[in-house]
Amino acid sequence: MHLARVIGSVVATDKDERLVGVKLLVIQPINSRGEDKGSPIVAADSIGAGYGETIFYARSREGAMPLPQPNACVDAGIIGIIDSIHVPITDEGG
Amino acid sequence: MHLARVIGSVVATDKDERLVGVKLLVIQPINSRGEDKGSPIVAADSIGAGYGETIFYARSREGAMPLPQPNACVDAGIIGIIDSIHVPITDEGG
Amino acid sequence: MHLARVIGSVVATDKDERLVGVKLLVIQPINSRGEDKGSPIVAADSIGAGYGETIFYARSREGAMPLPQPNACVDAGIIGIIDSIHVPITDEGG
Amino acid sequence: MHLARVIGSVVATDKDERLVGVKLLVIQPINSRGEDKGSPIVAADSIGAGYGETIFYARSREGAMPLPQPNACVDAGIIGIIDSIHVPITDEGG
Amino acid sequence: MHLARVIGSVVATDKDERLVGVKLLVIQPINSRGEDKGSPIVAADSIGAGYGETIFYARSREGAMPLPQPNACVDAGIIGIIDSIHVPITDEGG
Repeated sequence: MHLARVIGSVVATDKDERLVGVKLLVIQPINSRGEDKGSPIVAADSIGAGYGETIFYARSREGAMPLPQPNACVDAGIIGIIDSIHVPITDEGG
Repeated sequence: MHLARVIGSVVATDKDERLVGVKLLVIQPINSRGEDKGSPIVAADSIGAGYGETIFYARSREGAMPLPQPNACVDAGIIGIIDSIHVPITDEGG
Repeated sequence: MHLARVIGSVVATDKDERLVGVKLLVIQPINSRGEDKGSPIVAADSIGAGYGETIFYARSREGAMPLPQPNACVDAGIIGIIDSIHVPITDEGG
Repeated sequence: MHLARVIGSVVATDKDERLVGVKLLVIQPINSRGEDKGSPIVAADSIGAGYGETIFYARSREGAMPLPQPNACVDAGIIGIIDSIHVPITDEGG
Repeated sequence: MHLARVIGSVVATDKDERLVGVKLLVIQPINSRGEDKGSPIVAADSIGAGYGETIFYARSREGAMPLPQPNACVDAGIIGIIDSIHVPITDEGG
């Protein structure tokens, strides 16, 4: 899964009918230090993520699984809201 | 899903028979500020997107789902036309 | 789907048996102006593409669908031969 | 599969229910010389990997297969812990 | 499919049980001129590829298909050993 921060939302009137009622957020992929990487993407949200929260999302078919309609044509979905990331000073510990 | 802008269309006479009747558009992936990123791709369209419109598309199997023939050999499909993107000035708000 | 130009072919004697009889072409991904991008890949061809032709191909499972044996272990397949790409001078028209 | 080193872990209270009980690690993709490449990702672990260990992981559906619940919405999973990588000085040897 | 050269192998004692008995090679992706591109990956091999050989591999589910156990959690597999690549001087011929 991939780390990202919620930075906005999308309004789309004309869309596939399986997306009706699905909350669509704009998320900015980040690295483990919270720095932006790459371009924002549009992800479905059924977890209840809010602006500014750090989340992790799944791509492809896995991204649609948390939705009420898991066979929606969604290829990125928010899977969880991150409370904290633990990265030790040394990564050789164990 | 990914943001893109419709920039053209494709004519292909010799193609897989499951693509007959499928509208094929050339779309330019963009970031949330509308700036181009990467190279254009060819996407199937069943939503009715037009030149210059901002859309979002799904990749892989999900991209073919909106088509009349969902098992077409399509790996990118337009899923919705974007009316507006809301990105607050600060992404720490709630 | 992705744009590419056919630049060569591959001979492979030792291969998965489901690839016997499958034509394997080397294709160079391009952008909508016909300029190379990234590295060439090996794609299966059942459409009859020839050297120098511009084609579009699908990735993953979708790439194997046009083959006589659609469950072949192929992750890129030529889907159509492009006659022309229409990209207006301004992409705001419509 | 892809090489990575375990660099941390993630705590997420609000998440898809199929992720309850799944250990989520932060892993840093590396090349064959152990050097970092790209950004860390979040991967499920059912092998028992520890901080600092070199592992290989699978993406997409394959990443969820080792989990007790293989249909979890997981798109990256640790598949094995690497004891050693053998790369000869010359790669032309046989 | 993608071109690569076999550059090494991996020993992993702790791994998903479906990988027991599967030969795991380290392969370096290359372009059509044999030059390295990107970072090495770990691929399953059931074709019998050896050090220094040029191969092509499939990603995702397609990569596991040649294995005795096709539902192994493998996302990259060697599909064929390349005898020769034919790339004409001009790619407009044909």
